[in-house]
Formats: sequence, structure tokens, C-alpha cells
Amino acid sequence: SICLEITRWVICGLIGFLTGLIACMIDIAVEKLAGYKYLAVKQNIEKYTELGGLSISLILWAVLNSAFVMLGSLAVAFLEPIAAGSGIPQIKCFLNGVKIPRVVRLKTLVIKVFGVICSVAGGLAVGKEGPMIHSGAVVAAGVSQGRSTSLKKDFKIFEYFRRDTEKRDFVSAGAAAGVSAAFGAPVGGVLFSLEEGASFWNQLLTWRIFFASMVSTFTLNFFLSIYHGKPGQLSSPGLINFGRFDSDVSSVFIVFRGVLGALFNIINYWLTIFRIRYIHRPCLQVMEAMLVAAVTATVSFAMIYFSNDCQPLGQDNTEEYPLQLFCADGEYNSMATAFFNTPERSVRSLFHNPPGTYNPVTLGVFTLAYFALAVWTYGLTVSAGVFIPSLLIGAAWGRLFGILLSFIASSQSIWADPGKYALIGAAAQLGGIVRMTLSLTVILVEATGNVTYGFPIMLVLMTAKIVGDYFIEGRSRIPGGLYDVHIKLQSVPFLHWDAPPTSHWLTAREVMSSPVTCFNRVEKVGRIVDVLSNTSTNHNGFPVVSDTTENDEPGKICGLILRSQLIVLLKHKVFVERASSRLSQRRLQLKDFRDAYPRFPPIQSIHVSQDERECMMDLTEFMNPTPYTVPQETSLPRVFKLFRALGLRHLVVVDNENRVVGLVTRKDLARYHVGKDGLEELHLAQT
Amino acid sequence: SICLEITRWVICGLIGFLTGLIACMIDIAVEKLAGYKYLAVKQNIEKYTELGGLSISLILWAVLNSAFVMLGSLAVAFLEPIAAGSGIPQIKCFLNGVKIPRVVRLKTLVIKVFGVICSVAGGLAVGKEGPMIHSGAVVAAGVSQGRSTSLKKDFKIFEYFRRDTEKRDFVSAGAAAGVSAAFGAPVGGVLFSLEEGASFWNQLLTWRIFFASMVSTFTLNFFLSIYHGKPGQLSSPGLINFGRFDSDVSSVFIVFRGVLGALFNIINYWLTIFRIRYIHRPCLQVMEAMLVAAVTATVSFAMIYFSNDCQPLGQDNTEEYPLQLFCADGEYNSMATAFFNTPERSVRSLFHNPPGTYNPVTLGVFTLAYFALAVWTYGLTVSAGVFIPSLLIGAAWGRLFGILLSFIASSQSIWADPGKYALIGAAAQLGGIVRMTLSLTVILVEATGNVTYGFPIMLVLMTAKIVGDYFIEGRSRIPGGLYDVHIKLQSVPFLHWDAPPTSHWLTAREVMSSPVTCFNRVEKVGRIVDVLSNTSTNHNGFPVVSDTTENDEPGKICGLILRSQLIVLLKHKVFVERASSRLSQRRLQLKDFRDAYPRFPPIQSIHVSQDERECMMDLTEFMNPTPYTVPQETSLPRVFKLFRALGLRHLVVVDNENRVVGLVTRKDLARYHVGKDGLEELHLAQT
Repeated sequence: SICLEITRWVICGLIGFLTGLIACMIDIAVEKLAGYKYLAVKQNIEKYTELGGLSISLILWAVLNSAFVMLGSLAVAFLEPIAAGSGIPQIKCFLNGVKIPRVVRLKTLVIKVFGVICSVAGGLAVGKEGPMIHSGAVVAAGVSQGRSTSLKKDFKIFEYFRRDTEKRDFVSAGAAAGVSAAFGAPVGGVLFSLEEGASFWNQLLTWRIFFASMVSTFTLNFFLSIYHGKPGQLSSPGLINFGRFDSDVSSVFIVFRGVLGALFNIINYWLTIFRIRYIHRPCLQVMEAMLVAAVTATVSFAMIYFSNDCQPLGQDNTEEYPLQLFCADGEYNSMATAFFNTPERSVRSLFHNPPGTYNPVTLGVFTLAYFALAVWTYGLTVSAGVFIPSLLIGAAWGRLFGILLSFIASSQSIWADPGKYALIGAAAQLGGIVRMTLSLTVILVEATGNVTYGFPIMLVLMTAKIVGDYFIEGRSRIPGGLYDVHIKLQSVPFLHWDAPPTSHWLTAREVMSSPVTCFNRVEKVGRIVDVLSNTSTNHNGFPVVSDTTENDEPGKICGLILRSQLIVLLKHKVFVERASSRLSQRRLQLKDFRDAYPRFPPIQSIHVSQDERECMMDLTEFMNPTPYTVPQETSLPRVFKLFRALGLRHLVVVDNENRVVGLVTRKDLARYHVGKDGLEELHLAQT
Repeated sequence: SICLEITRWVICGLIGFLTGLIACMIDIAVEKLAGYKYLAVKQNIEKYTELGGLSISLILWAVLNSAFVMLGSLAVAFLEPIAAGSGIPQIKCFLNGVKIPRVVRLKTLVIKVFGVICSVAGGLAVGKEGPMIHSGAVVAAGVSQGRSTSLKKDFKIFEYFRRDTEKRDFVSAGAAAGVSAAFGAPVGGVLFSLEEGASFWNQLLTWRIFFASMVSTFTLNFFLSIYHGKPGQLSSPGLINFGRFDSDVSSVFIVFRGVLGALFNIINYWLTIFRIRYIHRPCLQVMEAMLVAAVTATVSFAMIYFSNDCQPLGQDNTEEYPLQLFCADGEYNSMATAFFNTPERSVRSLFHNPPGTYNPVTLGVFTLAYFALAVWTYGLTVSAGVFIPSLLIGAAWGRLFGILLSFIASSQSIWADPGKYALIGAAAQLGGIVRMTLSLTVILVEATGNVTYGFPIMLVLMTAKIVGDYFIEGRSRIPGGLYDVHIKLQSVPFLHWDAPPTSHWLTAREVMSSPVTCFNRVEKVGRIVDVLSNTSTNHNGFPVVSDTTENDEPGKICGLILRSQLIVLLKHKVFVERASSRLSQRRLQLKDFRDAYPRFPPIQSIHVSQDERECMMDLTEFMNPTPYTVPQETSLPRVFKLFRALGLRHLVVVDNENRVVGLVTRKDLARYHVGKDGLEELHLAQT
């Protein structure tokens, strides 16, 4: 067991290292590609500014963007549709215990990384941070299992970890490593994993997650510092770096509202429904993505063109691609800065540029345009994150607010720095959109590198969450955060933190599936095959009962056996008759179950002859002999707590005599939901 | 329920605010008192340096110190012995679910605060950070219950929260607020609470804990900034502030060992056993404390006197009390700086003073002397923390190590800053002593304000923990951390994270207490009184069974009732006969149980007449109708997991027919422990 524990640590270290490496790769690739693109467009614009043929520049820009986006979108739409979006809803589901096919395969990772490089380089209103979380999770799943289905390679290592609970633990470490690499926030990563995945607080696991996060941010930091030619200067712990804020904020207690964030979610909700209905063919999806890319380029171009917000070029030249355009010599167009940049840089300049850098009108128009683009973009068939666009929108209107406020109260010096309003605005917008408040606070605090901002950021995030929840969940029936919106649209049995508030009067009896198919301790093979083949009983767990009485009453519970176990048993033909006839037969071992994990063959692929159907199978040795049971009168909240605290998938409901009367599964619990008229049952997809 | 939730938030805000205020008060009081003391001694020394009568100064110093310590020690020894030490072991026990009398009373808080001010001002080798955690917990317990037993005042508010689970939740928030105020580490505080107290991860609770932490650090920061005359400049988020480290550490990967920390624990273990045996009378305890104070002063004085380590006075004058002593004009004695200061300041100067400030010999002697003093001090009957002394020892020898290393590799500039070695040494020493690795890393990272140090700090802490655990737990039978040592010496039923490693073959049948006293649904009052009065059946929970059969076989389980509930029922004489005869009688409500919480009257105080003994009591309405049960064959690890995940106190063991065969309590689980010869049963105190 000490050896196992050491292996776990090694795996977590590897996960952190590889995740950091991937983050580093994405960062460098995006920077290179975007650099070439901006350089080409900039030269083109400069060439044509005097000639007056700027439409050629526009076309060049739009075509370049669309080409990048097309590549990414093609890969996602045709090769691996699950790699679309940020992947955070999928990882949330995975950590929650919902099984989503192909979500942690190597192929998904490759497409995801390629897709995110393309979409960020293609100038879409997206970030590269969200997909890092998914990437970390895939790395974790791959490394911990010691094999890859995509590559058809089994390294014959880490075989012990080939089971659901262990795999999930590692995936949560991977997700944390992803957050850590994306934002340079190892503690935030740990909290993210715990918020989404943990039910039972496990000290050692938390430690390992923390270790993976630390290794990840350190690896990224180390390699980036080498890439930037300053080895050893570890100053960029994450993909995004907000720069350090000074700590003389005193009363930035203007409470921004999460209304804009909520609006974002509502529009995106309807848009996603529209997409599910009408844009489900891959070529249409690719075309939509290209259209968005072209429109983004056009809008940006138009805004740069029509704005005449010239700012003097600073001494320090913080802008990497300052566009002169129609400005006087020694000046640059500040609207161009906002668009002509990767979003990360724009956020940073909004936070840190000195007061007076931005014109209020510029900022206002920018906010609106970018908001519209970001809403449209999220949900496209490209790999992309929503963190950075949200931060950018929030930062822009936060700064706008700060500037307006400084007009009113110009005498007080505390109000002078609009960069702080930008930070608060960014927090509010992001909080309004994603609603992961606890880990988000820590992530933002870690990214700003100053604990003093923690309190205002927390207040803002809480307000954003409350306002957003009221505004959305109160008025409409759309669930809270953007990720929850997308999870709900997938109709998966996602278990929330608590049972629905008005469910106290519901008991296990009402919630459970009944009647439930039970097996005897020693069961006929034919019956097992029939039950497993029957598509209407699609349960994955079957109670084993001592002996069914004559009048078909269910017997006393004595165990629980899983569908996957039965399939392995059938495949190896572990029948009572055979065991006695051939003593030489190899006994079925734990290894046989592990090798089959996680893709057990379907029942149809196992051939059982008519003779064999008459054999018997002894389940006693393989079943779980002490499954968790509850009496029928147990209330729903109690059942819920058992499920969450113990990470159950099946709970057997018994009567006074310990006879099986029903079975509660995740789906039975996820079905209940508070709707407009109190508790409602949801329709859940058959996964 | 929304209203309740808002109340919880308000209470957490209050807890944070009050904890921050107390921290602020302690800080200011210590600074003032220590300032007066040092000023007096300094003037005295300066006066007598030329005259040659320095022994008078020594006596003055020793007397001043002893007087302060005597006051603190008197208060602790005679008024509230539970206020001794840092209080962290007690809070760990409380959060673990062990009930320790008087640990969260207002009186304890007052004595604690007074005691810690006295012992720090008295120059003992102690810190004021540990007691803050206890203080926060007391504040939380007091505020959340809306009344104080010490003041005999009931504010009639927050009555809903008068039960164990709610109170424990608030206390964990209070402990987090305490950590947060002590170290300016809100996230570290949250993690501390979770590490020590959480078993079931609860999103909203974590949020509230975080809120309390944030409010606490913000309050402290705010009031201290006002006190220091710079309102709004929130730069001191905690009682201790390490100052900000630059982030060009690249390879401080010298792995220090936790050996010194382990040594500390072993010596302290034997010392504590000695104290328990021989120094148990309050006056002896006070005298020992005074002796230590005098010895501390003498040792310090001797070292200052015999050292001739003169350093030039810097321009910036960072030292507040530079002693010239026998140095040339314009120079000061650096040994005096190390001793003639509050430990917090010394730590900071060890971290940040430029290379060359300290003489290696000085540091070596200082480390040894301070180590001896700190070991002797911890466990005295004074309120005191061990964090700062540990940090100081570690910082001193870390810096020493750094200086020695720079002699060897003097060419490389990376090795130049011994302050970083001081930081790493401090982390290693603290980690070796307390072994709370996860929250400690976060606390130290937050206190240094730089995430780049996270990785080396984590590695160092892990190494310290591993070495320490091997060194101590492998060789001797003393448990890991210093707090665990003290918890073990108190023999309380403390539940660790996991079941002991070799306990898989133990089942519920072997662990449970049996036979167990059961009650019938409708039970004779006389029997209840007899059972509760019988001191040999000191269980707090009693299974209720449907009906005992004639041959005295136990009946089927149908509920669980607590001792406290029975006592309230007896007190209000809720008998079946009375209910039918007098309809006008007020029904017993939840409020009656809450009012009695947490100090239910002893059974002896309730008078039950001979007639009443013949009455019957119907328990059906009051019992918990669906208690958690397990079959006899359940393994110990599984039982353990149920206890930890669901926060149980009683688990009924039933047979196949749902008949009660035994009861598992915390004590039954805590009894098993891995000793030298495998699993052993411990003797536990009767609490």
C-alpha cells in the first residue's frame, strides 16, 4: 500500500508535468501564429493606409482568420465533436460521476489542443484557458491508466488504477493541474477540483491534487522562462498573468451587478437551443465558425476604422502592435490596441495602463461589440474557452465605469485608478457568467498576486452570483452558470450539491425504480443473458438475493453485482458445472476485470450456446457482499446525502424484513428538480 | 430556509469581524507592553554599560519578564486551565467531534487573550498566532449560539443553531478566521478548517468559512492601518507579515530535513509526560512558568553580553531597539537584535536583512539556545503558540546554512541571498513540528505573498513530514505532529482520516459494544431512569426496538434516541398517561430541546416520583426513525468511512432480521491503533 501511494504521487507529478508542457506548447504556438498574422495584417494596413485601399486589408484579415478557424473547426466537427467548447461542462459531468463517452481519450486531447490554437490564432473572441482544464483531465486519465485506446497501446503499468474511483481521483488532479497552468493558481485549481468533484474530503487525495497543480504551474513557468530567454526567472506562473497590483486599494466597494453576465447566459441558452435544432450537420457547423471568424474580423476592422481615438505612443512601448492608421505621427489608435491583440494582452492593458489611456466612447463601443461577438462565439464547434472573453468584457466596462466615476469625483485620489475598476468589473462579469464563486475568487486573487483584493473580489462575485441566480433562475427556468446551462441542455443525470429544497416529503419508496430485477446467489446463465440483453432493464447494478420464494416475492438482500462484472464472468464462462468438471481451469482474478475496464464488451458480442444457457453461475464470490441499503421510509435528502458523501451509484431499498423492494440510481435522484410549479421530474437522456 | 442561510452568513461575518478585532487588540497590546519593557531595559543597560553594574539590568529584565508571565500563568492555572497552550489540539479535537468541556466558553477566551498578551510581553519563546485560532473558535461558538453561559445571558437569537452540527460548522469558520487573522492567509484558514474538521465537503459551508476568513483579515488590516495612522493602506493582512519576497528564486532546492522538528517533538513529549506526572498543582505550574521566564531573560542576557558581534547601524534603521552595548559608536550588537525583539520582528529580519548582517557563530548559538528555550516553553501553563518560535529557529539555522553555502559557492549569485534559506528553513522546521502540510504550505505562500515559492515550500514540507514521520513514528510510538502528541496524551477518542491500515479483517461485530441497552417504542419511565442513572452504560444513544420478544431476544430496530432527548423528555414529564388525562398540556417542541443545549441537566437533578416511575413514555415521536445501520459483517474500514463521511456518532449494528445486536460509537473506532505489534487497543479516557 505504501508502494501504491508512491505510484500515485509519481503519476500526479507526471500529470502536472505533462499538463504544464501542453500549456507551454499552446502558449508558444498561439503567440507565434498570432504574431505572424498581426505582422502581416499590420504591414498590409500600413501599406494601404495612404493608398486608400483598406478593403484589401480587411479581406486579408478576414481570410486569414477564417482559414485558421476553418482548420480548427474542421478537425473538431469531423474528427471529434466532443472536443468542442471549453470542455469544462464535460469535465464537471465526469467528476460528478456522469459517464460521457470519449471525453478523456487521447484523440480528444490532440484535437482539442490543435483546435484551441487555431481558434485563438484565428482571432475569435475566445480564450485558451478553459480547454487547458479539459487537456489536464485527459492527460490524467491517460497517464493513470497506463494505456491508450486511441493508440491501441497498453504499457502494462498502473494496472491497479483501472477502476472508476481511482481514475476519477486522477482526473480531478488533472483538472486542477489544468487550472493551475492556465491561471498560475495552484490553490485555485485544488479548490476547483474539490468544488466540482469532491464529495468526501480526502486528505491524501487533496495533497496529491495540490502536488499536481504545483508541478504543473512550475513546469509551465520553467519552460516559458527558457523560451523567453530568461531561464530561472519564474515570473509567469500561468498562461494568463494579470501582473501585480499594488495594494493600496481601499474602498473599491462599488458593487457591480451580474446582470450582464446573466444576459450573456440567457442569450447563449437560446442560441444553443437554436444550434441543437438547426445546425447539427458538421459542414454547417464549420461554415458557422468561419462566418463568425469573418464577422469578428470585419467588426474589429470597422471599429478600428471609424474610431479616431488617438493616443500618444508611450516611452515604454507596452503595445506590441501599435497601429498608427490615421493618427498623427507618434500616436497610435487605441481602439486598434483593444482588437489587435490576443485577448490576454488586452485584459492586462485594461488593468494596468495609466488613467487616460482609453477614451470612454471607445470603451463603450468595444464592450458592446465584444459582448455580442463573445455570446455568438461560445458554443461554436471550435475548442475555445469563455474565461478570457468574459474577463475582457468585464474589464472594459469596469474601466469605463471607473473613468465615468472619476469625472464625478475627480478630487479624490482613491478613485483615480480605473484599472482597479477593470479588475472588479472583470470579476463581476466572469462571476455572472460561470458562477463558480469560491474557486474563482481564489483563482483571481492568485492571478493578481495580492490577497488584499480578495475581499472586494469575493463580495463582487457573491453579488454577481446572487443577482444572476435571481435574475435567471427566478425569472426563467434556465439554470445558473453558463456551464450549468450547457450541462442541462445535454440532459445528463448531474447530481447537485443538495437535494431540491422542497423534497423532504419524498421518500425512497417514491424515488426508487421498482420492480427491480434481482438475481439469485446461484443463477441460471440463460436468465442472466436474457436480463442483460433486455434493453428495457438498462440498470448497471443488480441486487443479489438469497432465494426467491415461491410466490415470486423478492428474497432477502445479500449482495450487489454490476453489469460489467456479469459480462466478464460470462465472457470467461465461469459456470458452476465447469468449475467442478475441469479443476485445471484458471480462476478468474481481479486482473481480468481490470483488463476489461473501461470498455466492457456489449452483451451481444458474447456467444452463449444453448447448452451453456442451462448452466448455473455462482455470484457469491464476485458480488459486493455488503451493499448500502436504506429502508423505504428514508427521506430523499437523506438518500441524496448518502449518494454524495459515499459516492454511490446504486442504493438498494429494502423493507423491514431486508427484502429488496427497489433500487435508487443517480438518474432517479437527478430527475427531481425545482421548476416553476415546485418539484418536477426531468426527462433525462439515455446514457 | 433562505432566511436561515442569510442568518448564517451574517453570523459568519460577525465571527470574522470580532476575531479580527481581537487579533488587532492583542497585537496592539503586545506591541505597547513589549515596547515599554524594552525601552526600560534598554535605558537601564545603557546607563549601566559604562558603570559596569549590568547585573542590575539583568535582574530588572528577569523580574519584568517573570512578572508578566506570572500574571498570565496565574490566570490560566487558577481560573481556566483549558486556556493553556496554543489551543490548537483542543480545537482539532472539537472539530473532530470530541467533546471537551469548557473549551469554547467566553471565560476561556478572556483568559486566553489576557494570557497570550502576558506571555508574549513577558519575552517567552512563544508566538501569539496559535491562540488566535482558539480565540476565533470561541467567538464563533459564542456568537452562533446567541448566548453566553459565562455571562448568564441569553439574547434569544439564533436559537435554530443550538445543536451540535450547526455549532461545529460555525466553530470551523471561527478557527479559519483565526488562522486568517494570525497569518493574513484566508485561503490557508479555509484549508486548515477543512483539514481538521471537514469530512463531508459542503459547498455553502466552505463559502461561509471563506467569508469569515476574509472579513477577519480585512478587519484586522483595516483597524491596524488606522492604528498605524495610515488608514486605507491595507498592507498588513495578518498578525505576522513576512514582507514580500521577490520572485527570482530559481533553485533553492536544498531539502532540509525535519529531523530537528522531530527532535523537538520527542523532547517535548517526554517533558509533557513529566509535567503530567509531577507538575499538576497550579502553584507549581505558575512557578515553573516564572522560572522559564527568568531563565529566558538570563540566557538572552548572557548571550548578548558574551557575544561581540557588532554590525554597523544601517541608514534605514530597521531595528527598533538597537543596543550599542560594548560596540563602537555607530554600531549595534546583532545578537541583541535577535533577542531584544518580539519574535515576529526577528523572523522578518532573518528573512529580509541583506547578506552579511548576521555572524554565523551568533546564529548557531542563537539557534541552539532558542531551540532549548522553545522546547521547554511549549506546554507551560501559559497561553502561547508554537508557530513563531518554530519559524524563528528554522529561519535562524536556514540562514546559517545559507551563509555557509555561500562560503563554498561564493561565485554564483543565485546562492547569495541567505534570506531565502531562512524561509525554507523556517518552513522545514515548522513542518517538522506541526505536520499540517497542506494548509501550512498555503499559509506560508500567502504570508510570503509569492506563489513562486509554493513549490519549494511544498517539497520541503513534504520532506519534513516524511522524515519526521519515519523518524518518530517508525522508531518510537509517539504520533506525528506536536499537536497529535498532545492529543494522544489527553487520551481522547480522536478519529483519524482512515481506518488503521491492517484493520480489513475486523468486522463491525468485533468492534461494536455489545450487548446494547435498547428501549421499546413505549417504555416504562422507571426503566429509562434506571438506565440513564446507571453509570456503567454511559452511552449517549439508545436504539429503539419494536417489541422485545419473551425470551429476551432483541427486537427489530425502529429508531434511535439520544440521552439528551430522554433527559428533556423526563424533565418535561412527557408521559403517555399525562397526555391523555390533561389535554391542555403544552406539547413539547423543538425549542425545548434547543434551550437545554448544550448543557443538559444530569439525570440526578430530575426528580421522578415512585408513581411516575410506573408511567409509560412514547418515544416514537421523538426518536430518529431512520438511523444508519450496518450488517454485522461490514468491515472496519467501511464503518470508518461511514462515520467520517456522514459525521455519525452512533451506528447500529443489525443482523439479517434487522434485530439490534450492537452499537458502534466513536470510542469503539478510536480504540484501534497501529502500534509496535500490529493493531492494538488503546485505553481511552472517560469523557
